[in-house]
Amino acid sequence: MIGVFDSGFGGLTVLKEFLRVLPKYDYMYYGDNARTPYGNRSHEAVKAFTEEAVKYLFDKGCRLIIIACNTASSQVLRELQQEYLRTPDVKDRKILGVIRPLAEQAVKITRNGNIGVVGTRGTIESKSYETEIKHLNPAVHVHGRACPLLVPLVEEGWSHKPESRMILKKYLIPLKSENVDTLILGCTHYQFMLQEFKRIMGKKVQVPNPGEIIAASLKDYLKRHPEIETLLTRKGGRHFLTTDDPQRFAQVGGAFMGTRLENVKKTV
Amino acid sequence: MIGVFDSGFGGLTVLKEFLRVLPKYDYMYYGDNARTPYGNRSHEAVKAFTEEAVKYLFDKGCRLIIIACNTASSQVLRELQQEYLRTPDVKDRKILGVIRPLAEQAVKITRNGNIGVVGTRGTIESKSYETEIKHLNPAVHVHGRACPLLVPLVEEGWSHKPESRMILKKYLIPLKSENVDTLILGCTHYQFMLQEFKRIMGKKVQVPNPGEIIAASLKDYLKRHPEIETLLTRKGGRHFLTTDDPQRFAQVGGAFMGTRLENVKKTV
Repeated sequence: MIGVFDSGFGGLTVLKEFLRVLPKYDYMYYGDNARTPYGNRSHEAVKAFTEEAVKYLFDKGCRLIIIACNTASSQVLRELQQEYLRTPDVKDRKILGVIRPLAEQAVKITRNGNIGVVGTRGTIESKSYETEIKHLNPAVHVHGRACPLLVPLVEEGWSHKPESRMILKKYLIPLKSENVDTLILGCTHYQFMLQEFKRIMGKKVQVPNPGEIIAASLKDYLKRHPEIETLLTRKGGRHFLTTDDPQRFAQVGGAFMGTRLENVKKTV
Repeated sequence: MIGVFDSGFGGLTVLKEFLRVLPKYDYMYYGDNARTPYGNRSHEAVKAFTEEAVKYLFDKGCRLIIIACNTASSQVLRELQQEYLRTPDVKDRKILGVIRPLAEQAVKITRNGNIGVVGTRGTIESKSYETEIKHLNPAVHVHGRACPLLVPLVEEGWSHKPESRMILKKYLIPLKSENVDTLILGCTHYQFMLQEFKRIMGKKVQVPNPGEIIAASLKDYLKRHPEIETLLTRKGGRHFLTTDDPQRFAQVGGAFMGTRLENVKKTV
């Protein structure tokens, strides 16, 4: 089974692409809706909450976990990977994040070497994208911009309202004046405003769809790692866990996914 | 010692008034910053988090606890009061909320019997203000309006920005057309936008300052309950607890209070 962890609903945009590209596997989604959003929380809190989720998913039988949440990927992925490297059954348990595939894609497609990154305060302050990108190509310039109000706006269903566009414009002006030609949406929620991002940034700026890139990257990973791929069960099962009310998760999450969600349970 | 509980920073607006009106007592503030905001969470989650905080404050020596958070007051105050009524040392432990004093004041000052209430989704859906007001005067009409984006805007420090005023206007239009003459700010955060509320609602609508009313009500309560008042220590101590990073709490909370915060500790 493949585990997908997110602080709330945002990671469903990633799961949706997994189901499209790799439908045969079993999936278990874990949304920490009782403690979302993570964007402004301390490193310590994000680490404790993510560790709890990862342990839960492994205990439930996941062999591969994708940390879909950018804030958690940015702040604690490496620490978690190192911790699990020290456990004896390391070969059976893998944790992947979302920063590297998005950084790789941006480095691949930029023409002028100016990449913009938008995300929560936690993601931008961690400089995780900058580190990853500089590692791939030290000549590229990375321009980060925290957009802390976008998550609440998206969760309110206000993605396409004029007030949200005004706020988004305010956030993006500095990136436009930095002449970025590629923009990384470094937060799962932002995918819901993909069209707004594209319109404000203009035709010359490429804004890739993060879910698509992460799914393509997972497909590639499984091809390159048959020893992991073979551990994954494949009955097409879809399980949803939430730390808050399962009924509300089924309702809101179903709207996010564009389909009814069965099998929503509360974690204990 | 008097305990003040809030889901995050908002309750500091209430504590500030307590310190102004009743400075001699010892206070302990508990902000659940690792899990804020509560406004959209399930009843079950709000109950579990509030219970945890109340138990913590009692264990630390508080004898009287004010649930400053409107969402928690609305959803779980009665349940908590009833639970503590069943404990043997009930006389030594009191829990108060903020709904009743604000409802009483609104009923007292309305002239046309149309009272508006703004708050989080959790507070408005609970109909706690409506129940309280109808109990005081069944002839009064109560018009509730959830304003879920205001908490994130205030926490971002955007209280006075034009985008926030636009969003606030959108929320308040239905209340204006209902001809309310009194507006209850049913969320501690909204006090930071008090001037914006007043300006949009117009001169004919009264928008009382919630912190002032709650502090006056506590003063009155202590006068009427000398058996509680006598249990409270009075060394002028101020203690701050947070479930997230104490340094950030000291910094942001200090700005909210307009003074440096000493004694900020993390709960365990």
